[in-house]
Amino acid sequence: MKRYTLEELAVHLGGEPSERPGPEIEGVRPLEYAGKTDITYVSHVGFLAKLNQSAAGAVLLPFGLDSGDRPFIRAKNPEVAFARLTELYYGYPRPPHGVSPRADVHLEALLGAEVYVGPFAVVGRGARIGDRSVVAPHVVIGEDVQIGAGTWIFPHVTIYPGVTIGERVIIHAGSVIGADGFGFVRDSSESGTVMNVKKYHSGAVEIGNDVEIGALCAIDRALAGITRLGDGVKLDNQVQIAHSVQIGEGTVIAAQVGIAGSSSVGRLGVIAGQVGIADHLKVGNHVMLAAQAGVYRDVPDGSILSGAIPAMPVNQFRRVQSWFKKLPELVERIRKLERLVQPSSKES
Amino acid sequence: MKRYTLEELAVHLGGEPSERPGPEIEGVRPLEYAGKTDITYVSHVGFLAKLNQSAAGAVLLPFGLDSGDRPFIRAKNPEVAFARLTELYYGYPRPPHGVSPRADVHLEALLGAEVYVGPFAVVGRGARIGDRSVVAPHVVIGEDVQIGAGTWIFPHVTIYPGVTIGERVIIHAGSVIGADGFGFVRDSSESGTVMNVKKYHSGAVEIGNDVEIGALCAIDRALAGITRLGDGVKLDNQVQIAHSVQIGEGTVIAAQVGIAGSSSVGRLGVIAGQVGIADHLKVGNHVMLAAQAGVYRDVPDGSILSGAIPAMPVNQFRRVQSWFKKLPELVERIRKLERLVQPSSKES
Amino acid sequence: MKRYTLEELAVHLGGEPSERPGPEIEGVRPLEYAGKTDITYVSHVGFLAKLNQSAAGAVLLPFGLDSGDRPFIRAKNPEVAFARLTELYYGYPRPPHGVSPRADVHLEALLGAEVYVGPFAVVGRGARIGDRSVVAPHVVIGEDVQIGAGTWIFPHVTIYPGVTIGERVIIHAGSVIGADGFGFVRDSSESGTVMNVKKYHSGAVEIGNDVEIGALCAIDRALAGITRLGDGVKLDNQVQIAHSVQIGEGTVIAAQVGIAGSSSVGRLGVIAGQVGIADHLKVGNHVMLAAQAGVYRDVPDGSILSGAIPAMPVNQFRRVQSWFKKLPELVERIRKLERLVQPSSKES
Repeated sequence: MKRYTLEELAVHLGGEPSERPGPEIEGVRPLEYAGKTDITYVSHVGFLAKLNQSAAGAVLLPFGLDSGDRPFIRAKNPEVAFARLTELYYGYPRPPHGVSPRADVHLEALLGAEVYVGPFAVVGRGARIGDRSVVAPHVVIGEDVQIGAGTWIFPHVTIYPGVTIGERVIIHAGSVIGADGFGFVRDSSESGTVMNVKKYHSGAVEIGNDVEIGALCAIDRALAGITRLGDGVKLDNQVQIAHSVQIGEGTVIAAQVGIAGSSSVGRLGVIAGQVGIADHLKVGNHVMLAAQAGVYRDVPDGSILSGAIPAMPVNQFRRVQSWFKKLPELVERIRKLERLVQPSSKES
Repeated sequence: MKRYTLEELAVHLGGEPSERPGPEIEGVRPLEYAGKTDITYVSHVGFLAKLNQSAAGAVLLPFGLDSGDRPFIRAKNPEVAFARLTELYYGYPRPPHGVSPRADVHLEALLGAEVYVGPFAVVGRGARIGDRSVVAPHVVIGEDVQIGAGTWIFPHVTIYPGVTIGERVIIHAGSVIGADGFGFVRDSSESGTVMNVKKYHSGAVEIGNDVEIGALCAIDRALAGITRLGDGVKLDNQVQIAHSVQIGEGTVIAAQVGIAGSSSVGRLGVIAGQVGIADHLKVGNHVMLAAQAGVYRDVPDGSILSGAIPAMPVNQFRRVQSWFKKLPELVERIRKLERLVQPSSKES
Repeated sequence: MKRYTLEELAVHLGGEPSERPGPEIEGVRPLEYAGKTDITYVSHVGFLAKLNQSAAGAVLLPFGLDSGDRPFIRAKNPEVAFARLTELYYGYPRPPHGVSPRADVHLEALLGAEVYVGPFAVVGRGARIGDRSVVAPHVVIGEDVQIGAGTWIFPHVTIYPGVTIGERVIIHAGSVIGADGFGFVRDSSESGTVMNVKKYHSGAVEIGNDVEIGALCAIDRALAGITRLGDGVKLDNQVQIAHSVQIGEGTVIAAQVGIAGSSSVGRLGVIAGQVGIADHLKVGNHVMLAAQAGVYRDVPDGSILSGAIPAMPVNQFRRVQSWFKKLPELVERIRKLERLVQPSSKES
């Protein structure tokens, strides 16, 4: 178990510890879970009451807030400091480096310093894996794949040939990167038989630095250009990224989202779960899409959209939705008007 | 091929066979598929006509119903008896127990009696696997995972470290249990760069007894508490269970459902396909959610909801939906009223 | 790198090369990506302007269209010819045939001529694999699975026992074929405990010839009949096909679609992303379903449906949708009418 003093943690964070001595900190937990050897965080004054009821041994606190007699570390952004400490305490334990004798690494693959390759992993010819990267058991890395330093790939991930992955990337179990995009063209033969003729995809996939990809995501190869996830993009589980999609830096995408071919999403967006974005669209920067939204048109920078088929500005959607639920009542009002205006008209 | 007499099956079920002798039963099939050596079932009188046309060699029959001259076994709940017989006839054939020499089992893993571990399976340090459990080829079991007795894990399942799984659980191929929940906090550096700082998740996943998990499901680890599936929960394929979600006993969840972080679903619910439940919600006991429903508020016990964004009580939804489809007609009626009331007004 | 003259390509396609000599062709790319050693295609006159700006070294051209001085090959359907050339240039490179010493192939499995089985693949007893098929590393093929000739299975695919797969099929990484369908019946014991009793599925899965299955799809086994994908069906990633579903020849299904138990889809349909089709429905031939559509009723041949819950004819949906977004405006118009007709009435 890891243990650090508040002073050590403050140094790690570049923060400022309270003078009051605190316990040695053994864990990092949110308010409702923190025990007496845990550090927690409070972002603003509204959580101080909850802090008073918490057993937390110490607290990460913004400047200008008083924690009573609880030991603290001041931080510009306490939630960021909290996240940094979760890495210190719970970051993935590195396996000893080296290649398992039960792995299948091609002689012409190039492994950096301190790389780990687990049992039953397969690394193809010409693949290059950067220093300190971890290739878990049962990962399959195709030919000529390039992986940066400090990247961590969990079991059962498949990376098709030629994919490029940046530094400090995390890919969770079962994800598939670089399969063919979905492209077929219908052909009617003279005999009347119809076939779907496959377009083999020769394009690339490029995953930037500091990207995280959840479990069971599928990221397809472009037909000719590049499917690209910018630096700092984060995907939750079961996300589908089609051929030639571009995701801008720092955009986060929740579970079960699907983005169709050749669409792009700008920088620092937030896309909630089960959203669908149709093909060949341009979604701007700083866009927020609510859960299950269906996006069928280009979306300007800074938009906040909500609502399935079609998504619309969130304020409009709130009003639409509230009347949608009352449609039968509106019909009643129309009927009443009709009776008043056309007393003899037949009801419907 | 398995063969049992009706008397043997009746003993197995604790049911009551007809005096009329029947064929030896070699299969268990629904009415439309049953042949002359199959047993089928009829739940109520409405299916007797179909039974008459069926070739079934015997039938599971509720008390008080007459099958003509077809041999039968009486059962309190014929469909339940049918399901029990599918296990007798089609339950997964157990591989011979023992550890494949091609598996990678850590010396400090603890395997119960008659456990099977297939080729290329990986079992980490400190993992414990209960008696008679089956670990198929290509399963990866992390450190300190605990698995109860009689549990069956299909190929390419990944279980991250520290996950707890009950007895008689079935996990289908490709599912991922215990990956990090999706949690990031945005940090703007002084240089203006924005980063998504990762919260490493140190919480648990607990899967109860008699749970079934379909293929390609993702069940995430909690940040600090527990993600929990109660006893008897059944998940179809491609279901997403986020961090700290709680599913009550016996709830069944169809394919492609997504449940967002920290939400809970009560006991004995039925959730149809592609439903989305937003985060931090409380869905009660005995709730039914229709396919594609979008749940954005707490749901009281016993509710039946339908409709995407937002889901609403099913009777309300039926009326709303029927007028929704007729919106252009309502607009026509409003226009007509406007012409009558304000003859000179401009149309829109 | 592959290089062919226009004459060679024309022979390959059964097309007609221009007399003007062209470069040796090294790649096959759409207009916006094509360089001077690439061949591209133009389907109709509307793209000629774009062709003029393209650097493409040659173009596939329909009869009756003039490409100026660009070398060309005439083809009845240039896009089909383009797709055929992507196979010529980018078709998956065949690994050398033979069985990896690190694979686990049962002695009683039957491999055809020139089959490849990669490291860590598992092939069960009684499985039969047709000539020239490729079983990538980490594929698990269950007992008695039958696979036709020229089929290609990517890593981490799991094929449960008894599944039948045709010729020239492509299955992308991580897909799961033949897991149990989702079938449970609730049983209340006398003690009040409720259990979901599992129906073990003994039915089949049959995948036709020339089918492509994307990454991370789940195709379930029938309870007693057959789950069937007809010849030429194409599935994108993360598609869910439930027990006893039937998909007719040549139908293409985009990512994240879910089709519930016992439903059928006819021939040559086009189903866009995230569509849901409820259980026991009959969707006809030549049907088009727009993205996110929710299908709850039978769909006649040739229908084009759009809209979530419920899907409706696309022209109706366009009008409904446009008024849906204007619901608050309609309410305003109703209020105004009410004020005019019943001046004293209370507003709502």
